Amino acid sequence: MEVFEAIKTRRSVRAFTKQDVPNEVVLKLIDAARWAPSAGNIQPWEFVIVRNPDVKRKLAAAALHQTFIEEAPVVVVVCADQFRSERGYGSRGAGLYCLQDTAAATQNLLLAAHALGLGACWVGAFYEREVSEALKVPKGVRPVAILPIGHPAESPSPRPRRPLSEIVHYDRF
Amino acid sequence: MEVFEAIKTRRSVRAFTKQDVPNEVVLKLIDAARWAPSAGNIQPWEFVIVRNPDVKRKLAAAALHQTFIEEAPVVVVVCADQFRSERGYGSRGAGLYCLQDTAAATQNLLLAAHALGLGACWVGAFYEREVSEALKVPKGVRPVAILPIGHPAESPSPRPRRPLSEIVHYDRF
Repeated sequence: MEVFEAIKTRRSVRAFTKQDVPNEVVLKLIDAARWAPSAGNIQPWEFVIVRNPDVKRKLAAAALHQTFIEEAPVVVVVCADQFRSERGYGSRGAGLYCLQDTAAATQNLLLAAHALGLGACWVGAFYEREVSEALKVPKGVRPVAILPIGHPAESPSPRPRRPLSEIVHYDRF
Repeated sequence: MEVFEAIKTRRSVRAFTKQDVPNEVVLKLIDAARWAPSAGNIQPWEFVIVRNPDVKRKLAAAALHQTFIEEAPVVVVVCADQFRSERGYGSRGAGLYCLQDTAAATQNLLLAAHALGLGACWVGAFYEREVSEALKVPKGVRPVAILPIGHPAESPSPRPRRPLSEIVHYDRF
């Protein structure tokens, strides 16, 4: 799929068919994710591929009971290694670059999923401690996005966007 | 350009020819940026298109004197409206979603630039206060990325990536 088309036709998909997503496809998505840029090429990302129903249930519970998460055949949890970024760039690394790098990787993953005809949703509303406990996330690593992925069972319309005239400034605000 | 190709062949470009990048092309890049997902579709992003040489010089100085910034025909500064995200989602909005949403938008912009044959670089190392002063960024809004953009005068090799076996986990760490 062409880049601009992928960017503009990607939607947040929250309903999935029962069809599985094979592991090699999930790895292809994560491979796309890891080609994101990162500050100093530090690559502070870790990805947990979740298929275990109990673990998926815990993720959904941690995410304010958004049950569509456990209904996806596979869930990828993106984690940010703050220690890794801090070693390179101190507090700016841990508090900013780490979050930006993993977000850029997440966007790559979502575009890649859409290009392969899959649906996914970027879930950010969750209790990090509950997710960390469910996945045994080590100290210094922070879960930053829960991505349920599957074959779409819905075709959401585009959400409105702020017009360019509102968000673009020239030389200064 | 196809999505996976764009993701995998994008590089950080830090040398540009003298050829200009017309405003309609820059707007096309920002249009791609604004199709990124955002928490609650809040779209906490603002984009400053900088062509004024004095302002570009100030940006380069604020970014630890990375002079290639002022040598680009155009520089886009991505800003995150933390007040906007805070209104919707409190401290998690201001401290996390706002940074993730603008990072996803930035990644879209970089992929779009590469697809059009342009080069760009995500610069994160800068003094935010100096950038805010140069661009008159209002209170509550934070500059999060400086993106010099132009026609590439270099073709950097791919930087190494951590192998999948190191970054992928199954069901738990």
